[in-house]
Amino acid sequence: MSFNVPEVQEKRLVIVGAGFAGFTLANKLRGSGFQVVLIDRNNFHQFQPLYYQVAMSGLEPSSICFPLRKNFRSDSRLLVRVAEITSVDTEQKQIHSNIGVLNYDILVIASGATTNYFGNDSFASNSIPLKSVSEALYLRNRILEDLEQAVLVRDESNKDLLMDIVIVGGGPTGVELAGSLAEMKRHIVPKDYPDLNAATMDVHLIQNTARLLNGMSEKSSQVALEYLNRMGVHVHLNTMVEKIESESVYLNSGKVIPTRKVIWAAGVKASPLPGLPDQAYHRDRRIVVDDHCRVAGTHDIFCIGDVSYFPSKAFPNGLPGLAPVAMQQARYLAKLLLHQKQNQKLTPFRYLDKGQMATIGRSKAVLDFGRLHLSGFLAWMVWLFIHIYYLVGVRNRIVVFINWVWSYLFYDQALRLNIKPYSPGAHSNEGKRSNDRSGSSA
Amino acid sequence: MSFNVPEVQEKRLVIVGAGFAGFTLANKLRGSGFQVVLIDRNNFHQFQPLYYQVAMSGLEPSSICFPLRKNFRSDSRLLVRVAEITSVDTEQKQIHSNIGVLNYDILVIASGATTNYFGNDSFASNSIPLKSVSEALYLRNRILEDLEQAVLVRDESNKDLLMDIVIVGGGPTGVELAGSLAEMKRHIVPKDYPDLNAATMDVHLIQNTARLLNGMSEKSSQVALEYLNRMGVHVHLNTMVEKIESESVYLNSGKVIPTRKVIWAAGVKASPLPGLPDQAYHRDRRIVVDDHCRVAGTHDIFCIGDVSYFPSKAFPNGLPGLAPVAMQQARYLAKLLLHQKQNQKLTPFRYLDKGQMATIGRSKAVLDFGRLHLSGFLAWMVWLFIHIYYLVGVRNRIVVFINWVWSYLFYDQALRLNIKPYSPGAHSNEGKRSNDRSGSSA
Repeated sequence: MSFNVPEVQEKRLVIVGAGFAGFTLANKLRGSGFQVVLIDRNNFHQFQPLYYQVAMSGLEPSSICFPLRKNFRSDSRLLVRVAEITSVDTEQKQIHSNIGVLNYDILVIASGATTNYFGNDSFASNSIPLKSVSEALYLRNRILEDLEQAVLVRDESNKDLLMDIVIVGGGPTGVELAGSLAEMKRHIVPKDYPDLNAATMDVHLIQNTARLLNGMSEKSSQVALEYLNRMGVHVHLNTMVEKIESESVYLNSGKVIPTRKVIWAAGVKASPLPGLPDQAYHRDRRIVVDDHCRVAGTHDIFCIGDVSYFPSKAFPNGLPGLAPVAMQQARYLAKLLLHQKQNQKLTPFRYLDKGQMATIGRSKAVLDFGRLHLSGFLAWMVWLFIHIYYLVGVRNRIVVFINWVWSYLFYDQALRLNIKPYSPGAHSNEGKRSNDRSGSSA
Repeated sequence: MSFNVPEVQEKRLVIVGAGFAGFTLANKLRGSGFQVVLIDRNNFHQFQPLYYQVAMSGLEPSSICFPLRKNFRSDSRLLVRVAEITSVDTEQKQIHSNIGVLNYDILVIASGATTNYFGNDSFASNSIPLKSVSEALYLRNRILEDLEQAVLVRDESNKDLLMDIVIVGGGPTGVELAGSLAEMKRHIVPKDYPDLNAATMDVHLIQNTARLLNGMSEKSSQVALEYLNRMGVHVHLNTMVEKIESESVYLNSGKVIPTRKVIWAAGVKASPLPGLPDQAYHRDRRIVVDDHCRVAGTHDIFCIGDVSYFPSKAFPNGLPGLAPVAMQQARYLAKLLLHQKQNQKLTPFRYLDKGQMATIGRSKAVLDFGRLHLSGFLAWMVWLFIHIYYLVGVRNRIVVFINWVWSYLFYDQALRLNIKPYSPGAHSNEGKRSNDRSGSSA
């Protein structure tokens, strides 16, 4: 097995990762005269901002994923390969992977970020991450399984263990999850689970700083907090999680919350490639780049997106890990590479901050745009349309739109299916029979 | 843990299985004055006739599944329980399950059928079944993984191993799969996998009798065969599979087909419950019922759908395992149970044969209705609309309709995603990293 990439006279440009950064770059380089090899561990691009809606049974995974080969089929000079990149060899100008070695002329690292447990194993093994559509499906199935279980147990404290949910991390993901869980508690659990007392389903949101949505304005944080309080979410500010066990969460306040479901949305860490010059690695694992997105100490390797460390006046700790940053860097880099071909220079990359937003529930969202702070229905509409706009694929946009209109009209998330994975060897329906919780499926 | 079903003065009617039979019966018994407990191993109803379209990336699983609780939420006297029934105790009038014991006044067995490997382990362990949406997802992922692999291997014979597909069984499922694989070979592989030679992708269909679609008319069988031949499918009639190994299929003709993908669509066997009187078990495992769908040797246990053995003049070996049979028996039984409450008798059940149909590809279908035999575009339209009509849920109908119009217009199945299952404990993205083939996901 090998990359099996045809040797051509064009320069080979290898892109590691098909997230917002890598995917956008590959799109911008269509017909650029490079032989582009786009590598990802999945055969699809994932739309991270909506993972939480998959977890909440609001969207099909297929609505927020797009097959890479379908997207790039028109460009014969672009090759898609599904692989795990393990390291880079800057001497030989090669990358190493689970499917072999590939030479590059130019390498672009866009390998993104992964869940950060801050080295605490109790966090890692007793909480559910939400950094991929697979994890979103796993969370969806867990929520549904636990509600079914709650129906079966008679003891109230056991019901609480199964119904209560703790979310660690008050960033956009945590806030959006807390909001939609509160709506599920209010609109769905009472109807679907008449044998349960929905009022006893507690949603906890743990934030280690003084306010939610740190990346946003004070005002937006305040509004988001008010929304969540009104929706009955227990928000714990200035609170740290010390330990997570299979059935309880220990807070530094001394409080212990009994639950079997902890969602970890407390942070990410870069997924860099080993093999770069030492000065290329920032202490937080991100890859240090110059103001042209070039990796420090190299001249033919670039790095964009969440994995890159790009400090600026406004962001001395590096640009935030946001889709707009990744996409702007990708567009800049495409331009730079084309200029380079004509031996032209390009001015340094500058991030244009278009603001941020988060949605808390139906008609409830917050939006910062420079000095402008929107909230409520208008902000929510803006959020909906911007997310549909950035989705890949017309079909996806149509289906997502239908699903959103549907749940708005009927206060309902239509896809509450716990589809268990089938394992070969386990004959006939055994796969479905197994009650174990490994694997997620939809 | 227990069924935790409230004791009420109404009679308790327990339905085992939420397929076409059990699901339809439960719907018909709304407000019937029974306490109805509907039990299935999944929290959703599955629309079996379209599994193959999920496997072919044509439909989301969520489009052909419907959450049970959502469907029955309006009826407080109907309780949904997710459980595996292990046996019945006719003395105690109890069923035993993985979540405990439940008493019944009336029991309805609608546990359906499962894949039949005819006791051959080499079939069971080296082929892929298609009797659940989970298995359909597994097949979808396998097809996509193997195509990616085929891109990576250089040796032609290895490419063939990965690209060629053998389907065992020339019934509707086998014929429909063969047809859509032929279309995938023609319309999708060349575009999505320019680095592969689509022409070398062989689709084999193995049928042990002299014609395909045994359940249908000679004419329809003939037309289906012509369609498949024209589409380039290798149809092997009067051929039996003797052995399946991980990389080859042995036919009784002496021919050996090298392949790593064998789809098993060669038959089903009933999934009866142990514990019934001996005379209730037919030699083929089905449950013998009288002409009122009552299980032989019992008076408060009924059996409908694929698991029931109901011989008739037209069908001396028992009614066929078809959705219309299951649904007609369910409607009849609902009526019978309501009559029974008023101590009224009901005439025996009679199956009204509405004919059969199968679709082979775009604008290609066959339909039998009494002496009428339709084929081609018209038959295909009838097939499409009947299937949309019987789907559960308006939203599902809309989404399926959009997907079908889409793939008709663009010769494209939009959902070619290989979403691997996430396994907890395997931290962060490890779940996605794993290249093993266990589990199916979407």
